[in-house]
Amino acid sequence: MSGWVNPLRDKRDKRMPRIAGPCGVVIFGVTGDLARKKLMPAIYDLANRGLLPASFSLIGFARRDWEHEDFGQVVYEAVKQHARTPFRQEVWDRLAEGIRFVQGTFDDEEAFGRLAEQLDKLDAERGTSGNHAFYLSIPPKAFQQVCEQLQKSGLARPQEGRWSRVVIEKPFGHDLQSAQELNGVVNSVFPEESVFRIDHYLGKETVQNILALRFANELYEPIWNNNYVDSVQITMAEDIGLGGRGGYYDGVGAARDVIQNHLLQLLALTAMEEPVSFGPSELQAEKIKVLSATQPMQPLDQTTARGQYAAGWQGSEKVVGLLEEEGFSEDSITETYAAITVEIDTRRWAGVPFFLRTGKRLGRRVTEIALIFKRAPHLPFDKTMTEELGQNALVIRVQPDEGITTRFGSKVPGSAMEVRDVNMDFSYGSAFAEDSPEAYERLILDVLLGEPSLFPVNKEVEMSWEILDPVLDHWASQGKPDAYEAGTWGPASADEMMHRMGREWRRP
Amino acid sequence: MSGWVNPLRDKRDKRMPRIAGPCGVVIFGVTGDLARKKLMPAIYDLANRGLLPASFSLIGFARRDWEHEDFGQVVYEAVKQHARTPFRQEVWDRLAEGIRFVQGTFDDEEAFGRLAEQLDKLDAERGTSGNHAFYLSIPPKAFQQVCEQLQKSGLARPQEGRWSRVVIEKPFGHDLQSAQELNGVVNSVFPEESVFRIDHYLGKETVQNILALRFANELYEPIWNNNYVDSVQITMAEDIGLGGRGGYYDGVGAARDVIQNHLLQLLALTAMEEPVSFGPSELQAEKIKVLSATQPMQPLDQTTARGQYAAGWQGSEKVVGLLEEEGFSEDSITETYAAITVEIDTRRWAGVPFFLRTGKRLGRRVTEIALIFKRAPHLPFDKTMTEELGQNALVIRVQPDEGITTRFGSKVPGSAMEVRDVNMDFSYGSAFAEDSPEAYERLILDVLLGEPSLFPVNKEVEMSWEILDPVLDHWASQGKPDAYEAGTWGPASADEMMHRMGREWRRP
Repeated sequence: MSGWVNPLRDKRDKRMPRIAGPCGVVIFGVTGDLARKKLMPAIYDLANRGLLPASFSLIGFARRDWEHEDFGQVVYEAVKQHARTPFRQEVWDRLAEGIRFVQGTFDDEEAFGRLAEQLDKLDAERGTSGNHAFYLSIPPKAFQQVCEQLQKSGLARPQEGRWSRVVIEKPFGHDLQSAQELNGVVNSVFPEESVFRIDHYLGKETVQNILALRFANELYEPIWNNNYVDSVQITMAEDIGLGGRGGYYDGVGAARDVIQNHLLQLLALTAMEEPVSFGPSELQAEKIKVLSATQPMQPLDQTTARGQYAAGWQGSEKVVGLLEEEGFSEDSITETYAAITVEIDTRRWAGVPFFLRTGKRLGRRVTEIALIFKRAPHLPFDKTMTEELGQNALVIRVQPDEGITTRFGSKVPGSAMEVRDVNMDFSYGSAFAEDSPEAYERLILDVLLGEPSLFPVNKEVEMSWEILDPVLDHWASQGKPDAYEAGTWGPASADEMMHRMGREWRRP
Repeated sequence: MSGWVNPLRDKRDKRMPRIAGPCGVVIFGVTGDLARKKLMPAIYDLANRGLLPASFSLIGFARRDWEHEDFGQVVYEAVKQHARTPFRQEVWDRLAEGIRFVQGTFDDEEAFGRLAEQLDKLDAERGTSGNHAFYLSIPPKAFQQVCEQLQKSGLARPQEGRWSRVVIEKPFGHDLQSAQELNGVVNSVFPEESVFRIDHYLGKETVQNILALRFANELYEPIWNNNYVDSVQITMAEDIGLGGRGGYYDGVGAARDVIQNHLLQLLALTAMEEPVSFGPSELQAEKIKVLSATQPMQPLDQTTARGQYAAGWQGSEKVVGLLEEEGFSEDSITETYAAITVEIDTRRWAGVPFFLRTGKRLGRRVTEIALIFKRAPHLPFDKTMTEELGQNALVIRVQPDEGITTRFGSKVPGSAMEVRDVNMDFSYGSAFAEDSPEAYERLILDVLLGEPSLFPVNKEVEMSWEILDPVLDHWASQGKPDAYEAGTWGPASADEMMHRMGREWRRP
């Protein structure tokens, strides 16, 4: 088996083989959506791409009364249904050999003992060498218990030369204080270099490409500053509603769910200075530096907006408002739309507002980062000829329709020197033959490789809460969010917020 | 008729109607290709777009024994065959009413007398108001005679409040001295503001858009200088050969035919400073300024190359070399490929070589201006990850496939931070619903409007020869040009020229 080379092996991967070394992945929460739709398929896809070692095993831990085979069947169905790459029986068979299940609850010390035994056995049988990643795909309130159990069973502290890593999913707390408490709990068991916080946006090709775009090119960095940039708009819009997700979302809201993590991470990559290298500590140093200079613009009642969707139309479908959604209380004041303005106190960005917005039940699903440029300082054109000329923009289309758009003025064909905005487009889909890997493939592989670049550290998480907390406190004193009709682009107050600043939201 | 408004009238033309005023156009050389394929169709297209006045007439002057109707039929056929816009009978009928023919030779004073009578008659009949454009679509050696005849017959000196303009086509001389002589002849009859020299490239939308691109936007001007630009390549490549064109081309060659006019005009628009406005004198001032700072890079045997096509393959067609073409002598040393390097001694461009090349029987027909940018000063990537990263480029695609391309580095999908060149494209065809007008439509209309912005003045012509003459003199001392196979991208010496400068030609 060890001599086997997968023919699908990433041919473009020019660096020496970045195959994970021998290891096992333990998933807590195997019955959840995330495990089934993302984690299990991503592990198969990695195997299919030849990026997992021959000595690999996948262990599920859950309360269900399953045998190994039952869990294997669950993984099989998840792979068949959700894997990105084609199903190949021989890859599956090889992966299936290493699939195990341990039955237990989080408060059951013996179950963790059985888990430790199972892992020992796999080390011997499959050569996983005592290297283990524990993927906590579970509610944060259970983090403490599981971490402590892992500590007690000796699994959190590997022997010399072996590794033990923990993977956690957002939310990383509810505010600064709870985030500090959570980090305290996790770090009391796992040292920070063994903690991998998943922000799946950072695993997206389009997000990693921000670094390539900025630092591999000569075209963009000279204008990437407050001499030329008027403002930046970072948008994550979703068209879906929250039916059935009340248990998670009610009392959390759009700002905590999206701005604190995804949007502030996008901001950090967009606004940071060039790192000395893309080594993890160099990259984190720059992200931390720029986040530490970032703060909400005052006064908050002028620079922020929030909303809650009411009934409306999503395309041709009539949809209900949040308060009628299953799982939400009729007097919920949870916001489903949040817009904030932050400023970055650096030489590069002073004076350039960054507008961050996110929402459910908006016009369409789109995530983008738009740098809006100032107008040319002088237009040597007749005034009437530039009426349809807007501001130049560089738009990083994170999803869907991944790519980059430059918006600029071009002469309209005809005898007058009339100028109108046009787009210049780059699309991943047409530039590269290969599909982009799923974010989870990249991130799980990085966990197994011990490559922490794409994972926010505790300091970044806490800084993000420091930026957001004053806004959340302000909103908490303001009662209900403004209603907006489902299928529109948010509440009128969000447009008013922009008008006050002499600007307009892009309609992406 | 005067109340008639053409429904096709340029709706986007937001400036107040730029319809030409009452006038007549006299074409000398109506039996030539240019008149039939370009001038007559362009006049019809202008009529069809509602940009010609009701009081308009078109007069042909030639040796042929034609009646007005015969000439009318010639125009009709040219329009039917070559017009850009749809044929509409009512537009044609209206145009045809004003078509006249005057029979004569250039040495026949009486014929010019008859022309003057005819124009007087048309002024009375059709209200052309004594305004006349004389289009010399004839060999330059006849310019002097025709200008003098126009002077003698009083046609060159209109009465107060009327205008008389002369339109001439390249070649504007053969070198500086002959250009000065030619300008002397023309200017002795027509004041410079009444002389319209056609460089049809300047009538192209893509060329006029250079000004919009540079000066309506904030994105490009900051990097449009020697801090960021490594070099500029201006290319006009043709795939056709010269069979049958020996009479015009032999002894002229690629540099005189294309570099002296088209390419140096493209250089001027690309390299000039921002004009105070797009008024003609402001624009010309900047073009003259930048041309006066432009000179061939020394030593010329290192910085230039020339070639003559030999037999080869154009696609699937076997084609002969220049020396076997009809109309060329077997020992012709006329170059069909020319490449020169110029430098511009200004703060903006010092140190940036501009490479200008043109040729017949090259790989394909393409005209483009490519700004090649320096590499980023530092690449925080593993070295192996940027092996396929070239230099950024901004390419103005003049023809065909009109548009703009940005070439830049993007991350290759996959787990490594590998960067490769990709393209971002803007295309006129998809951005604007309307076809672009033909260059000749724009230029003829501008002649009738007395709008001189897009016509090189005598000083520009002479300066272009001043730039080119040292190269031509050098080549004249060097014997035969280097042979290159038809269908390739020019002689090996042109590649060697670039290699000596540490650069490479783009393969457009």
